Amino acid sequence: MSSAERQLHLNLFILDTGHHEASWRLPESDPLAHIDLAYHQNLARIAEAAAFDSVFLADAPALWGDVGQRPSGRLEPILLLAALAGATSRIGLIATASTSYNDPYNLARRFNSLDHLSGGRAGWNIVTTAGDAAARNFGLEAQPAHAERYERAAEFLEVSARLWDSWQDDAVVADKERGVHALAERVHPIEYAGRFFRVEGALNVPRSPQGHPLLVQAGSSESGKDFAARWAEAVFTAQLTLAEGQAFYADVKRRAAAFGRDPEHVKILPGIVPVIGDTEAEARELEAELDRLIRPEFAQRQLAGLLGLSPEQLPLDQQLPADLPEEELIEGAKSRYTLIVELARREQLTARQLIARLGGGRGHRTFAGTAEQVADTIEEWFRHGAADGFNIMPAVLPSGLEVFAERVVPILRERGLFRTEYTGRTLREHYGLPRPANQFVTA
Amino acid sequence: MSSAERQLHLNLFILDTGHHEASWRLPESDPLAHIDLAYHQNLARIAEAAAFDSVFLADAPALWGDVGQRPSGRLEPILLLAALAGATSRIGLIATASTSYNDPYNLARRFNSLDHLSGGRAGWNIVTTAGDAAARNFGLEAQPAHAERYERAAEFLEVSARLWDSWQDDAVVADKERGVHALAERVHPIEYAGRFFRVEGALNVPRSPQGHPLLVQAGSSESGKDFAARWAEAVFTAQLTLAEGQAFYADVKRRAAAFGRDPEHVKILPGIVPVIGDTEAEARELEAELDRLIRPEFAQRQLAGLLGLSPEQLPLDQQLPADLPEEELIEGAKSRYTLIVELARREQLTARQLIARLGGGRGHRTFAGTAEQVADTIEEWFRHGAADGFNIMPAVLPSGLEVFAERVVPILRERGLFRTEYTGRTLREHYGLPRPANQFVTA
Ligand SMILES: Cc1cc2nc3c(=O)[nH]c(=O)nc-3n(C[C@H](O)[C@H](O)[C@H](O)COP(=O)(O)O)c2cc1C
Ligand SMILES: Cc1cc2nc3c(=O)[nH]c(=O)nc-3n(C[C@H](O)[C@H](O)[C@H](O)COP(=O)(O)O)c2cc1C
Repeated sequence: MSSAERQLHLNLFILDTGHHEASWRLPESDPLAHIDLAYHQNLARIAEAAAFDSVFLADAPALWGDVGQRPSGRLEPILLLAALAGATSRIGLIATASTSYNDPYNLARRFNSLDHLSGGRAGWNIVTTAGDAAARNFGLEAQPAHAERYERAAEFLEVSARLWDSWQDDAVVADKERGVHALAERVHPIEYAGRFFRVEGALNVPRSPQGHPLLVQAGSSESGKDFAARWAEAVFTAQLTLAEGQAFYADVKRRAAAFGRDPEHVKILPGIVPVIGDTEAEARELEAELDRLIRPEFAQRQLAGLLGLSPEQLPLDQQLPADLPEEELIEGAKSRYTLIVELARREQLTARQLIARLGGGRGHRTFAGTAEQVADTIEEWFRHGAADGFNIMPAVLPSGLEVFAERVVPILRERGLFRTEYTGRTLREHYGLPRPANQFVTA
Repeated sequence: MSSAERQLHLNLFILDTGHHEASWRLPESDPLAHIDLAYHQNLARIAEAAAFDSVFLADAPALWGDVGQRPSGRLEPILLLAALAGATSRIGLIATASTSYNDPYNLARRFNSLDHLSGGRAGWNIVTTAGDAAARNFGLEAQPAHAERYERAAEFLEVSARLWDSWQDDAVVADKERGVHALAERVHPIEYAGRFFRVEGALNVPRSPQGHPLLVQAGSSESGKDFAARWAEAVFTAQLTLAEGQAFYADVKRRAAAFGRDPEHVKILPGIVPVIGDTEAEARELEAELDRLIRPEFAQRQLAGLLGLSPEQLPLDQQLPADLPEEELIEGAKSRYTLIVELARREQLTARQLIARLGGGRGHRTFAGTAEQVADTIEEWFRHGAADGFNIMPAVLPSGLEVFAERVVPILRERGLFRTEYTGRTLREHYGLPRPANQFVTA
């Protein structure tokens, strides 16, 4: 492998017993895995042994969907990653947190703390949180409008960035002789006053190894892509076809350049749900076996909710109603809505068929095939302007991760696409990104 | 040791390189210990090897005091304890969090998550947070009045308790055959609407091993003691003399009984800063050596701030001004204010002398002596109605903890006062407290 060759990035998206919603029903699955530390330690260690860039946990501050359907209720992800920090030493740790239902002082501090605890391995998947359920846990009747949520997110990031820089890197002098621990003139109250937030500062923790956590984002609406282009260093996205993936990739890179950023400093990671068999037929049978375990009445309620319908408006053996609203009118997860509706229309799927398609990846691309075929599709997207890396979303965990690490990763290495061992220490170094300078220091 | 004998409880209060504000200046001290995971893992392991009930971390969501004076800025404590959960297996993990500057949904979830991650070892030191600095990090001009902060705290606890109970213990059935993970009828939205909070619920995590974290409190004002009597299972307190300790102990137990609670279910833990030498003289010399390292101009600013004065109003070699306000007029930490003012008046201390007295324990009792003498005073308070255990606050860490574990703990064991090994699994079991029942289940 030539060291100059562009390298692929791999993130493990951990979700309970796997991304297929029926994975917990398999004999091998522990249905209490989602609240078990040892289970997550094991996953993180497998991913680290394969030199993955990072692991990632999704989140929302509300109970989602049907508690019968699948393991529901999750441990708070920043805490879970703090517990994993001690069990790992190199892999990056990316947690989701909402800008709509947090205070910037507390949240900026928690990511700073995770970065200290992990020696510079923290990442933040910034979300605005769709849905009224979350809003109603925080004193509101309904969620703020989509545009309003993104405006708050923008201000949240402004405040956070200032807090993360409020201690200069050289503020702590630890001069025992003179009895001076830090220099007050190198610690800056931020004195922020905006539309959503007023924060005096400074942060109550010194600057962290990475300066601030790696910023990750996954919004795909217009506001979402602009936000990503302004702030994100890595972008998670759900893309079903190569052409769509290429269009999204080009779009975000162009927007980043328009913000004056180096497009190489925004890494695009589409999701893939790899279902791997010794033959393609075996992989497809694995997939079908999982789909048979989906209980359609649960999935019907969930899909109806996402489309803003009642379950009765969504008969299982008919196609979607013709009069669904336009994306502009959706205040929830706009782009996911569009993706699902377009998929159903394009392939003329009944609700039942759509549910099976979504059961694996909820809109992410499921790819059933041999290890070689999985490596081929990864390489294809990577070489043809659709991806800088992938968000690996195994249908079943831990087995789907183990198979990926044992069979696909070696092929990617042989092709010179993926590292054989870590070359950097911090999460940002894994992604080949520069450490952010401190805005309070001009030198 | 007879198993029927009442047992002492020991909590380690971890603070940077020790509770003496100049401890970081000693040659042995690592001035970056406060942001170092390995340092905290080591302390927790020493305390666990000595079978301490718990470790504890203080907190405020603001930068306190002078950054020059001592290590300042701390890692967010719930996160730090999550990182320690994996490095320990038995010791309890108590984090401070503020009811004034958090949302109950997020915070209740974080303590639930810590309890899951640690297998039932989470505790919450509930504070209302004194001071305007914190308020100004959360959009306010100044802190809410003392009474208002405690009213919010009461409602915060109501909401949290309901959230912690929102999943019945038997809600998760994990029936793979039928494809039902949890029973919706055993998960209860809380539908809370009060003066400070409106929360729909349910929590997005199943009930945790302890049901909810051990509730700890440290307010000593009238409102603080009532709050403790209503909610707290363990109370931290600063008491300088045996007589004061006895009065506080009787007072809180009486208030708990008045709330219909078993007074034995509220454990009172005064703080002690043990400075241990081979002889009493050696211990005193150790203490004096530390006091000489205090920089009086830093301490003067800090003490003035606590008393609501400017540094100029507090000349170092004079006694405190005669016209200090009454406790009723203090909106900050009322009881600590009174304790300090009374100490200065009683012993007719100059500001400089008072600073030396406070440098060790900031109002907690410093006790310099031999291991035998430290064990004697612990036993005395324990047997004479002033303590159910102690909050151990070593002046220097880790050495002060090591000496305590090696020399004082064996004496307490010989006297039948302290366990030789853990007998329980959860934090509440260590403290001899019952697991809370779920309010949604009457059976
Ligand atoms: C891989 C991936 C992970 C996501 N994780 C979360 C999450 O944890 N929490 C959340 O609220 N939204 C999550 N989202 C949703 C996005 O943040 C975003 O809300 C959604 O894609 C709709 O885009 P929009 O907000 O721009 O309309 C995720 C999206 C993707 C593609
Ligand atoms: C051992 C101990 C630890 C404390 N830790 C904290 C803390 O971490 N954060 C905080 O804001 N207050 C802390 N306090 C202060 C108390 O919560 C309380 O505010 C103070 O004793 C004044 O009492 P009052 O609030 O009833 O006036 C602590 C007090 C004691 C005795």
